[in-house]
Amino acid sequence: MRTIWPARDAVQAIDQRALPHAVKTLRIASARDAAAAIACMAVRGAPLIGVAAAYGLALQARADASNAALANAAAELKAARPTAVNLAWAVDRMLDRLRPLAAGGRAGAAWDFAARLADDDVATNEAIGRHGLDLLRRLVPRDGKTLHLLTHCNAGWLATVDWGTALAPIYKAHAEGAKVHVWVDETRPRNQGAGLTAFELREQGVPHTVIADNAGGHLMQHGRVDAVIVGCDRVTSCGDVANKIGTYLKALAARDCGVPFYVAMPLATLDRSLDDGLTQIPIEERAHREVTHAVGRGPDGKTIEVQLVPDGSAAANPAFDVTPARLVTALVTERGVVEASAEAIAALEETARD
Amino acid sequence: MRTIWPARDAVQAIDQRALPHAVKTLRIASARDAAAAIACMAVRGAPLIGVAAAYGLALQARADASNAALANAAAELKAARPTAVNLAWAVDRMLDRLRPLAAGGRAGAAWDFAARLADDDVATNEAIGRHGLDLLRRLVPRDGKTLHLLTHCNAGWLATVDWGTALAPIYKAHAEGAKVHVWVDETRPRNQGAGLTAFELREQGVPHTVIADNAGGHLMQHGRVDAVIVGCDRVTSCGDVANKIGTYLKALAARDCGVPFYVAMPLATLDRSLDDGLTQIPIEERAHREVTHAVGRGPDGKTIEVQLVPDGSAAANPAFDVTPARLVTALVTERGVVEASAEAIAALEETARD
Repeated sequence: MRTIWPARDAVQAIDQRALPHAVKTLRIASARDAAAAIACMAVRGAPLIGVAAAYGLALQARADASNAALANAAAELKAARPTAVNLAWAVDRMLDRLRPLAAGGRAGAAWDFAARLADDDVATNEAIGRHGLDLLRRLVPRDGKTLHLLTHCNAGWLATVDWGTALAPIYKAHAEGAKVHVWVDETRPRNQGAGLTAFELREQGVPHTVIADNAGGHLMQHGRVDAVIVGCDRVTSCGDVANKIGTYLKALAARDCGVPFYVAMPLATLDRSLDDGLTQIPIEERAHREVTHAVGRGPDGKTIEVQLVPDGSAAANPAFDVTPARLVTALVTERGVVEASAEAIAALEETARD
Repeated sequence: MRTIWPARDAVQAIDQRALPHAVKTLRIASARDAAAAIACMAVRGAPLIGVAAAYGLALQARADASNAALANAAAELKAARPTAVNLAWAVDRMLDRLRPLAAGGRAGAAWDFAARLADDDVATNEAIGRHGLDLLRRLVPRDGKTLHLLTHCNAGWLATVDWGTALAPIYKAHAEGAKVHVWVDETRPRNQGAGLTAFELREQGVPHTVIADNAGGHLMQHGRVDAVIVGCDRVTSCGDVANKIGTYLKALAARDCGVPFYVAMPLATLDRSLDDGLTQIPIEERAHREVTHAVGRGPDGKTIEVQLVPDGSAAANPAFDVTPARLVTALVTERGVVEASAEAIAALEETARD
C-alpha cells in the first residue's frame, strides 16, 4: 500500500491526522484540495507533499489546463508550506513538462508525469535504503548486541510514497535479520514520532521505544545510541539541513557524545540556490494551538485535544530548524553516501548529470 | 501565599497536579502522606520536596518519635524520589537535630525545625534572586530592548517554598521595571513549563511565551535568547548539574550559540560526595505513561489524559539528565555567583563555613 494513489477522477491519500489510532483515507479532487491537505498536514513529509502537489496540478490540468489556471494552481500549491523545497521542485517540474504542450494534451501528460514522480520517489527511497543499509551494516555491534538508532519526527513510508528516507535503511536492516532498535523522539508539538513513526515501526515489527524529545541527549551520553538518522526538508548547496524543529539539538548532542549523525536526503531536497541555511531557509511558523494543546485518544476512544497551558499564556511554534553542515556526519542520498560539504555535494551533482 | 504551610495537626500544600487549570490544596497528615505526595509529584521541585519531607518527619515525630519510627519514616521519605539531593539533605538535617533529644521533646523541636527549614528556603531563594538580578542587570540591552531569557521545567515559587530559584532573579528584574520576556520550555513529559512556569509567570504578570522543548536551539541560533537560566536537582563538587531531562540539550545549544547558561543553585542542592555527575548521580526512571500520554484540560473543562502513541509501542522516561560543568557559565547561589568548577565551589563552601 502506498500513501497516495490515483482513484478515477481524483487521488486518495492516507489522512495522517487520524493516525495512529485510526487509518482513514482522504479524497483529493482538485488542486485546492491538495493544497489544503498539505497545509493542514493531512498529507505531510517533504517527499510526499511534492508528489501530492504534482497530483494536484494534474487534477487542475483536467479541470482547466490553460497557462493561467496552471500558474494559479502552482502558486497556491507552493504556498501551502514554505520550508520543504520538494513542493516547489515537484510543481516546477510539472510546469516545465506541461508548458510546451498544447492545452488539449496537458491533462493526460500531467497525470502520467505525476504518476512517474510517485514511482521515482519510491525508487529513490529504495536506493537511499540500500546505501543507508551499507552504513548500518558497518555500525552493527560484532558481539551480537542490538544496534540502537535514534530518529526525530517521521521520515518513513508515511512521509514519502513508500519506503521512507531515514527509515528505509532501518527497514532493510530489520528485513535481513539485523537486531535493530529505534529510539523514537515523540516530536512535539505535532508528535509525528509518537504517532507516525511508532505506528510505522509497529506495523513493520521493528522494536522501538518512544521517548520525550528531551531524552535523546541523556541516552547518547550513556552510550545507548549508536547513530542518529533523520530526514530533511531542504538542504543547501553547502550541506546545511533544515528539518523538523529539534533536529539541531540532537545533532549537537550527537557531536558532543561522538555519535554519528546521518541525514537521509533525496536529491529533490537539495536547494542549489542557497549556501547559508541559517539565514536563507524560510522557517514555517505554525498555529500556536499545536503548542498550547496536545491531540490524542481520549478516555472514550475518540481523538480529542487537551489544553496544556493556562488561559492567556502566549505560545510560539517554529516548525523547523537548521542543522549546520559541520554537525552532519554524512548525507545518505539515492546516489550514495556523501559528506555534507559544498565540494562533495557538487561532485554528487556531477554524477547525477552523467 | 507559600506552597506549603502548617495547618493544625497536618500541613497543607498546593496540589501541583491540578495546575494550571485549577488551584487545589492537599492535606498531608503523616510521613507516609508526605512521601506519597512527593512520589506522585503533587508536591515537587528540589527545594520544596526537601521541606515537605522535613514536615513529614515532624508529623512522624508527633505520632511516634522513637528512633526506629523516625528511621523508618526517613527511609521512606528519602526513597520517594532518587535524584534531587535536597530530599536526603533535609531529612538528614532533621534527624541530626532530633536524635540527641529525649523522645518527649522531639515533636515540638521537629515542628519548629521544619518551619525553620521552610523559612531558610525562602531566605535562600530571595538571596539567589538578588545575586541573579545583578547578573540580569548586566545583560539588559542598553538600547531599551527586551531581555529574553529561556528556562526549562519549573524552578519558580511552585518548586520552592516561595520565590523560586531560577525565576527569583526574573521576578526581581520584572519588579524593578526591566523589560523581561521568558521563553518557557513546555518540558515534556510532565509539562512543568507549560503548566507551572507559565502559570506562575502569568500570575506575576511577566511576559512569556511557551515553546516546544524542540524550539530553544532554533531561537538561540537566531539571537532571540540572551541567557538561559534553570534550576537543579543535584550538583556535584565539580559543578556537574543534574536537572530536568532536556537541560543538557539546551546547554549544548547555548554553548554553540554563545548564549550564557546559568544554573540557580541553593547550597542544599550541592552533593559534596560526588565528583562525576554522569556516572554517579542516580537518574529517576518514571512511569512510561507520562510519555505515552499527555494530561490537559479536555473539551468539557475536566483534566483528562490522552494517548499519544499507538497501542503496543514501548516508551522510556528518564526524568533527569546531567549537564557537564564545562557547559555551565556560572552557578547562582545564595552566597553569590560562582564558576561551575571544583575550585570555585570549594572556595564558596569555605565562605559558607566562616
